[in-house]
Amino acid sequence: MEIISENACFGGTQGVYKHASESCHCDMTFGLFLPAEAKDGPVPVLWYLSGLTCTHENAMVKAGAQAWAAEQGIALVFPDTSPRGEGVADDEAYDLGQGAGFYVNATQAPWAAHFQMWDYMAEELPEFLGNNFPLDMERQAITGHSMGGHGALTLAMSLPGRFKSVSAFAPICNPTASDWGRKQLTAYLGADEGLWAAHDASLLMRNTGFDGPVLVDTGTEDQFLDLLRPETLAAAVSERRQEATLRLQKGYDHSYFFVSTFMEDHISFHADALYGE
Amino acid sequence: MEIISENACFGGTQGVYKHASESCHCDMTFGLFLPAEAKDGPVPVLWYLSGLTCTHENAMVKAGAQAWAAEQGIALVFPDTSPRGEGVADDEAYDLGQGAGFYVNATQAPWAAHFQMWDYMAEELPEFLGNNFPLDMERQAITGHSMGGHGALTLAMSLPGRFKSVSAFAPICNPTASDWGRKQLTAYLGADEGLWAAHDASLLMRNTGFDGPVLVDTGTEDQFLDLLRPETLAAAVSERRQEATLRLQKGYDHSYFFVSTFMEDHISFHADALYGE
Repeated sequence: MEIISENACFGGTQGVYKHASESCHCDMTFGLFLPAEAKDGPVPVLWYLSGLTCTHENAMVKAGAQAWAAEQGIALVFPDTSPRGEGVADDEAYDLGQGAGFYVNATQAPWAAHFQMWDYMAEELPEFLGNNFPLDMERQAITGHSMGGHGALTLAMSLPGRFKSVSAFAPICNPTASDWGRKQLTAYLGADEGLWAAHDASLLMRNTGFDGPVLVDTGTEDQFLDLLRPETLAAAVSERRQEATLRLQKGYDHSYFFVSTFMEDHISFHADALYGE
Repeated sequence: MEIISENACFGGTQGVYKHASESCHCDMTFGLFLPAEAKDGPVPVLWYLSGLTCTHENAMVKAGAQAWAAEQGIALVFPDTSPRGEGVADDEAYDLGQGAGFYVNATQAPWAAHFQMWDYMAEELPEFLGNNFPLDMERQAITGHSMGGHGALTLAMSLPGRFKSVSAFAPICNPTASDWGRKQLTAYLGADEGLWAAHDASLLMRNTGFDGPVLVDTGTEDQFLDLLRPETLAAAVSERRQEATLRLQKGYDHSYFFVSTFMEDHISFHADALYGE
């Protein structure tokens, strides 16, 4: 592991680290905020999965999350959104390839060689973090923005018992029926739509649900509302009687000004779940 | 005035605007956060002046200031750090020319044609803001980071009665004796060091002081401590018996992780002064 940077931040440390990923067959970079309490022993963990075009850095500098995580004594993990590097396949479009991993294991060329983000997020990175940092991996929660909200919701529902709570900011809720999804799922998983269902939060909600509380915020002025399809998740939550709070926030758009505005709410929500037992 | 963007943010609006500057003879861009209270009438104003290489945008997205400004009902102004554009003089170095205006009126070629940042900050932009937005220009305060801390301190001490309070994050305290200062003051103002004194916070503190409270935070691990020279400002504050709080924050560096950590303190400090009368 290489330490890229470590900065004092809200009484703790905001670090950036690089390690060789076996899943993705390339170096992967992530941000990790450790609150002051981590000096005395393992602390709970909140994952923040980012959206299209983002690296580990966007949320780390723009979401204002450290203030509230420090207050709650919770660590924050900011993974990258895809494998990267010269030998890694890419596409000219902003929404495919590097910066757009969609949190799936690609089976199709040219993506399969590196784009194994599901395994990286579900197995490799958690294990790496648990082995190298003072984190209590029995107390994890997950959130994310846009494509990262999709990742947070699908990981949380597919890994029962892993996360105490899940939230999302303007998540892609129904990628199998959206231009933010059909294109990428075709490229990464192939044309058989039956294989896509495991990566659709609305379908997972209908079939599986989540054993814990769910919080989702979306702005009424989100410029990508037609692509996010929050209505399909809302319908699935209602049908399932899932414990959940779904909010449409008047006047807010898709930006980090929206994310930062509601970050305190989300971290308080996760703190309740992480410290509730 | 051109509206570049307006995003809902903490119940208010984070805007970015462009206008033709008479002082700088070019278009200038600034950020303005208006809290919800601005819908009902003029609100107090806190200026945030940025450091070397920054535009209006850095603090606007990285300092986490809107959360606390919203809580206090205070507007935030994020000016640019220099004139910009193809016809504007520049230098290859990061610390001279565009992005490095140093908040002075240049008298020397090639800078004098556009680099009139003192007039822009002291006269033109305040008048423009007062005429175009619901701001109470009788209640202003000012802060800044690094070169912007220098700007905040020198403007506050040189414009008696203008600002109720002044603070700074890791300010350049003594530019007439620092490589962050001597180079730029020579380029912009010429070799006569007698003309530089009006732009040195430590000298101004010794000779003039500030009629109100002062708050300065600097990190003990700031990688630019030798260039900032906080000890000269500390000595001047002591000699003058200036009402002031000067803090050295253990472990913190020069980054926005440092700035954001202490932003709540600074905005609370200014709110006390702005609402105290």
